[in-house]
Amino acid sequence: MSLSREHFISISPADFFYRNRDLAGFTNPARALYTAVREFVENSLDACETHQYLPNVYVRLLQVEETEGGAGIYKLKVEDNGPGLPPDRIPEAFGKVLFGSKFSLRQTRGKFGLGGTMAVLYGQITANKSTTVISSSGGVKIHKFELQIDILRNKPKVILHEEFPNPSKWHGLSVETYLEGDHYKAMPRIISYFKQTAIANPHANISFIDPSGRFYVFKRVTNQPPPPPADILPHPHGMDVESLQRLISATKCKDMLSFMIEHFHRVGNIIARKFLEFAGIPFDTSPKNLGREDLVKLVQAMKSFKKFKNPDSSCLSTLSKEMIVAGIRREFDPEFIAVSMRKPSAYSGFPFIVNVALAYGENVPKVSGGLLYRFANRIPLLFDEASDVAWKVMHTMVDWKKYGVSLEEDPIAVFVYLSSVKIPFKTVGKEFIADRPEIESEILNGIRDVGRQLRIYLSKKRLIEQEKKRIDVYSKYLLKIAQFSTELAEKEEVPDIEQILKGVRRFGKEA
Amino acid sequence: MSLSREHFISISPADFFYRNRDLAGFTNPARALYTAVREFVENSLDACETHQYLPNVYVRLLQVEETEGGAGIYKLKVEDNGPGLPPDRIPEAFGKVLFGSKFSLRQTRGKFGLGGTMAVLYGQITANKSTTVISSSGGVKIHKFELQIDILRNKPKVILHEEFPNPSKWHGLSVETYLEGDHYKAMPRIISYFKQTAIANPHANISFIDPSGRFYVFKRVTNQPPPPPADILPHPHGMDVESLQRLISATKCKDMLSFMIEHFHRVGNIIARKFLEFAGIPFDTSPKNLGREDLVKLVQAMKSFKKFKNPDSSCLSTLSKEMIVAGIRREFDPEFIAVSMRKPSAYSGFPFIVNVALAYGENVPKVSGGLLYRFANRIPLLFDEASDVAWKVMHTMVDWKKYGVSLEEDPIAVFVYLSSVKIPFKTVGKEFIADRPEIESEILNGIRDVGRQLRIYLSKKRLIEQEKKRIDVYSKYLLKIAQFSTELAEKEEVPDIEQILKGVRRFGKEA
Repeated sequence: MSLSREHFISISPADFFYRNRDLAGFTNPARALYTAVREFVENSLDACETHQYLPNVYVRLLQVEETEGGAGIYKLKVEDNGPGLPPDRIPEAFGKVLFGSKFSLRQTRGKFGLGGTMAVLYGQITANKSTTVISSSGGVKIHKFELQIDILRNKPKVILHEEFPNPSKWHGLSVETYLEGDHYKAMPRIISYFKQTAIANPHANISFIDPSGRFYVFKRVTNQPPPPPADILPHPHGMDVESLQRLISATKCKDMLSFMIEHFHRVGNIIARKFLEFAGIPFDTSPKNLGREDLVKLVQAMKSFKKFKNPDSSCLSTLSKEMIVAGIRREFDPEFIAVSMRKPSAYSGFPFIVNVALAYGENVPKVSGGLLYRFANRIPLLFDEASDVAWKVMHTMVDWKKYGVSLEEDPIAVFVYLSSVKIPFKTVGKEFIADRPEIESEILNGIRDVGRQLRIYLSKKRLIEQEKKRIDVYSKYLLKIAQFSTELAEKEEVPDIEQILKGVRRFGKEA
Repeated sequence: MSLSREHFISISPADFFYRNRDLAGFTNPARALYTAVREFVENSLDACETHQYLPNVYVRLLQVEETEGGAGIYKLKVEDNGPGLPPDRIPEAFGKVLFGSKFSLRQTRGKFGLGGTMAVLYGQITANKSTTVISSSGGVKIHKFELQIDILRNKPKVILHEEFPNPSKWHGLSVETYLEGDHYKAMPRIISYFKQTAIANPHANISFIDPSGRFYVFKRVTNQPPPPPADILPHPHGMDVESLQRLISATKCKDMLSFMIEHFHRVGNIIARKFLEFAGIPFDTSPKNLGREDLVKLVQAMKSFKKFKNPDSSCLSTLSKEMIVAGIRREFDPEFIAVSMRKPSAYSGFPFIVNVALAYGENVPKVSGGLLYRFANRIPLLFDEASDVAWKVMHTMVDWKKYGVSLEEDPIAVFVYLSSVKIPFKTVGKEFIADRPEIESEILNGIRDVGRQLRIYLSKKRLIEQEKKRIDVYSKYLLKIAQFSTELAEKEEVPDIEQILKGVRRFGKEA
């Protein structure tokens, strides 16, 4: 009666995502095309950001073949002017799932070590061609690779590796892959994606040529790149036994006092001493001598000790208020923009910052329910909006009447920018963000703040309109009175009523 | 300027899901507790189903410690009367991510090879205790394991393995693990989960003792287990080059004709010949001699050949109409139930069946927007409803006015049951289903069908009500007339008006 043994197998991570590509956003040809574009563009923006290059990203999509049901095979090329990749890392970076440079505690767009490789994998199984990667760090050589993935073994297969001289000191990375897609269905999302990426990355030049040859350019509106994100040490509040064991097995510290100072975020000598006293651990205990029970107690003490400093947000890279406004203005040029720059906060030991902006009035599309733009580490989130924490806050927790507007009737767009070393995405496809209470509350406060700014603007606007009416009445009758009085007085020159009107104006001189 | 090499690392799948546990539903203590309960219960139901045992599943949740912020450490025990697991597979089944028996083309509740192991992993990092597994196939021995996971290496660590005699021939599996949770917040979902699981599994006995000692029993209402799901061969329409290569490297077939017949779903001699002619491949070609370009052409031919038979649904295990009604009646006992049993269909070569039920009227909770119950391979989906294809159909594609009801005002519950060898979940946490057009259209047709049944019921009900009124009027006056006539005729016995009333009744004799 026992289960047959042949049924039990172990599969590689590449095989897992090959079997379950819906999980990574490769659901159908349209969605896959969108996801592939996005993953490569985000890799490019990340690479430039780390090195403070102003990104120039060039994207070319070309249909090379027609397949079943409106779909086709496309050639996708994404090129950037970033730092390139070390040549000996290129095969694994594009040919091995769960391999990457983004597993540290640092704010990056990618986080799963999946995106680019998944696009290559999806291309391979649908278009059956190799992917070409060309890269240089600006040194004497340019490297060219042709790659495939051994999905069963989760290993890259290098078909070709060539080197070229680099007289012009070009640096950057270019990826060219073939994949099945459906650009008729995907194009609206892809264009939205570029538009919103431009809003959140006003320092980037992005150009895109679509399959019909149409050229889209999103020019940078600032030459100031956002500050580069930095690696941080883990915060004690976010520890568990597993991560603590890993730190201990890697540490060179001989005693717990130096261990605490060396390996944790914002733990100095004084706090380390206070904490070890609180936890009942002698300062000179060797970390390697702690048993499993000790580790359990240590983690519990780390969670309950109240005097650790809050995570430092200097590792986060956020847009300045000016950059937020510039990004929105380039896209909409709305009548009114409000921005709320929130203070840093933290969840489970991870620092994060929420900024919120609101656009109102003329030039904002009037959509019932209002528009919501969501950004996580400067990538726009376009799918599954209704499952996102920002949607929940905007639609169920904010009383918009308070601010004199209605989401159903007024032209309103809300922009939520979240930056963190760890965005709590609920899907590998990075569609939406979990409702961690700390993040929820920051978004709520941010929306309330821009709501108040809107209310002030609207009441000022109404006053100005009333005043304008009042002045209009005056000017209408004053003119008549002035003309009449001039006639009565048998004079010829009508007095300057502008001077008189000035006297009755209360504010809004320019109105 | 090149990126430093130290940044590049490769991580194990266990490490990936350890770092990204939000992806698998382990977002916070409340959600994690719910997910852990659910994963173990689903493993139990799957195991019983394969062997046609009527499942008895016993779940015990006990708080053993309090931790920060209302959360606590819980002991979770789930025991079933299934076939158990082969003892040499137990460590990996619970201690290795992406290891399992569910990677074949067969309808199962689990599909990712993740659930149980993720619960063990989450328990280990939050409660720091081993997991105990006790199992027997009903043979002479009972096996007991204490396990942990080596997350970095994705390998089980066996702390203890003991064997006991099994005089009573017990078969089944019991898992006992410790994890951080928050049962105050999780309990409503857990109870909903059990209630809905009972609706979709009317053949199961499920008992649950919550941390306060309260005992919940969901008794089976049928002794007929659903038919066991069967493995199927892949359908040519769902092939890609990768899967084709795998088949070829494993095949013993010497020629393409036998290869097509041997390895594909519903491909017999005649269809195989017609297909190979269509694809321009001689019957006696050896599969191993096909080059990459040949494979590409073969896959394209498989996708465009129109004469393959549709996938056979006999591998699917669905509830009968009687079982659907029994499940709903046990939960609600509503005034009216309609069921639509759809015919099998297929997407990307995977067979699926959608069944839809509707409950209306008395005893159905009146909720604005109506109630939606979603089941995929008999597991209830409780989260992120608004992102699910069934929600989209119910709320944006069905014109309920046509059926004489309003989702806002009438007590309506819709039940959507999807069965497939591959459910296109969009998250590892199995929260919602992608909107594949084929599935969408089946759900739409199913809802329209139950809608029409509802309309017929409602109009009949209205007619009956009118008739009842009419008869009421007759009976009222007839009685008077009969009494009056009796008096007039100076008789004593009033004639039997029931007989007369029968004559004027049009239908609804029992009304």
